Amino acid sequence: MIETPYLLFLGDAPDGLAAKVAQGIKDWRPQYALGQYRMDGCKADLKIEDMDLAAAKAAGAKTLVIGVANRGGVISQEWKKVLIAALEEGFDLASGLHNLLRDEPDLAAVAKSCGRELHDVRVPSVQYPIANGKKRSGKRCLAVGTDCSVGKMYTALAMDKVMKERGLKSSFRATGQTGILITGDGVPLDAVVADFMAGSIEYLTPDNDDDHWDMIEGQGSLFHVSYSGVTMALVHGGQPDALVLCHEPTRTHMRGLPDYDLPTLETLRDTALPLAKVANPACQVVGVSINTAGMGEDEALSYLEKVEKQMGLPTADPFRQGAERLADALDAI
Amino acid sequence: MIETPYLLFLGDAPDGLAAKVAQGIKDWRPQYALGQYRMDGCKADLKIEDMDLAAAKAAGAKTLVIGVANRGGVISQEWKKVLIAALEEGFDLASGLHNLLRDEPDLAAVAKSCGRELHDVRVPSVQYPIANGKKRSGKRCLAVGTDCSVGKMYTALAMDKVMKERGLKSSFRATGQTGILITGDGVPLDAVVADFMAGSIEYLTPDNDDDHWDMIEGQGSLFHVSYSGVTMALVHGGQPDALVLCHEPTRTHMRGLPDYDLPTLETLRDTALPLAKVANPACQVVGVSINTAGMGEDEALSYLEKVEKQMGLPTADPFRQGAERLADALDAI
Repeated sequence: MIETPYLLFLGDAPDGLAAKVAQGIKDWRPQYALGQYRMDGCKADLKIEDMDLAAAKAAGAKTLVIGVANRGGVISQEWKKVLIAALEEGFDLASGLHNLLRDEPDLAAVAKSCGRELHDVRVPSVQYPIANGKKRSGKRCLAVGTDCSVGKMYTALAMDKVMKERGLKSSFRATGQTGILITGDGVPLDAVVADFMAGSIEYLTPDNDDDHWDMIEGQGSLFHVSYSGVTMALVHGGQPDALVLCHEPTRTHMRGLPDYDLPTLETLRDTALPLAKVANPACQVVGVSINTAGMGEDEALSYLEKVEKQMGLPTADPFRQGAERLADALDAI
Repeated sequence: MIETPYLLFLGDAPDGLAAKVAQGIKDWRPQYALGQYRMDGCKADLKIEDMDLAAAKAAGAKTLVIGVANRGGVISQEWKKVLIAALEEGFDLASGLHNLLRDEPDLAAVAKSCGRELHDVRVPSVQYPIANGKKRSGKRCLAVGTDCSVGKMYTALAMDKVMKERGLKSSFRATGQTGILITGDGVPLDAVVADFMAGSIEYLTPDNDDDHWDMIEGQGSLFHVSYSGVTMALVHGGQPDALVLCHEPTRTHMRGLPDYDLPTLETLRDTALPLAKVANPACQVVGVSINTAGMGEDEALSYLEKVEKQMGLPTADPFRQGAERLADALDAI
């Protein structure tokens, strides 16, 4: 559990895209994004207050979150100056970088002497149980995709936002590093040992109020041969009541696998639903989320209409249109 | 890679069942089972030569394999006396115990000073790649089960044995600790980090001669919610040309999951085959392997006949009848 609110470290980001983790936090949890810390030459800007460490501390920030990718796979000395000063100032550090903060001797030593935490969200900090498959109270929605990186996290976050705006009980449950930094908690599923994958998702989505929804962030795809085992653990460990099918229509092959075609939405439905029913016989496919970023407005709207007819399910692009209709679909369950 | 042949350590096994790893090595790789080492009070007996360390060394044994479960989850001082003497005598040690040999300071220190290896086969010793899904040469057969522990390893080993007896090219590919100790090599799949599961199976079953078969040991079941992700990684990483369906007909519920029914063989076929075709569109279901240990001879034979008719596939219990007919079924591919 990462303490909030955050000071978002953008470092010397060469452009806005490099700071997409920080952007995600600002977009989805603006209440956590107290301020941004930019070094000389930083080209990213979240349009929130620039703060130095002392100002952020005075404003109540607890954790400096590295919201930017590092160049060349190293944590530079320029960054370290700031990170060490932050530890000395009383901040915890949180990072989703491949290089772990804890593996840097200087950061580890200063954190220890200052009594601060280093959160490396790419590695599990919990000894997860083996899944027991027992029926849990509360409701769960899982986004499953025709491919990796088609908008599953965005869909779950957008549906969670609508539910909360309506005063309904909802929790976004993060299963990847960006999601974990956004919410301050979650399971880095791709780094969990095989035997404990499904158990980690049971742990993440425990018994809850009958009218509470967990919006579980999906990972991979049942049709992506590199990561399908991870997706399978979500389908069974998540015990979903509702599935949302996610798709990106301009993709010409599976991500990183040039010889693999994407499945159709019908094939995804007919594969994922029977598997989900093993863990939850009441599971239903409730809607379709399309990432139409690669289309113009007219093309996108007509594509969405076509899919809605074809699948007989509420279909929306939550980025273009919001997730209201997808959230509506949960009411029926 | 564990050096063979072995001296099999049975310790103070309270009965034959406790030494089932050693029994498996003796049954499937008798040429590796040079002798057995039994302590006072040992109740297991593999009916091979009893040897002390010096005799085994003189006979050419390279590795002392712990072929017995330990009691109470600790490696006792009595065992350690033998293990340390073995290291000093020039043996490597190999173990599938949950307690790792390397975590015992005395064993680790002696192994280091003697220049010997400690093989803890429960933990991966390789940094596996992420799966790339590329088509590999050679052929692969995967055993998939309606449940865990229904005879998948036995089926793959028995088919491999028949293939070798026929002079055909075949390799049993181990994915669990017992299989790894039997063959001296393999992937401890349940201990691999999620992102690398499918890649570890690609690594285990690389390009090979066009007429070579990998007989891949299955793990878990697509219908077992605790481990289905592991099975999925085998289905996609293994890229099988042939699936053998494995079933234990007296099971009343999924192993360890009292609320879960077993799927039918038809459901297993109709679930596993389309998923396997994602990675290998030519994949076929070639046969059914039934573990009839819980049935009398007449009941077993009539059950096998019934399943053969029902599924329209060669059906056999490889323990009761041998795996000839299952191996025959691979000829058709």
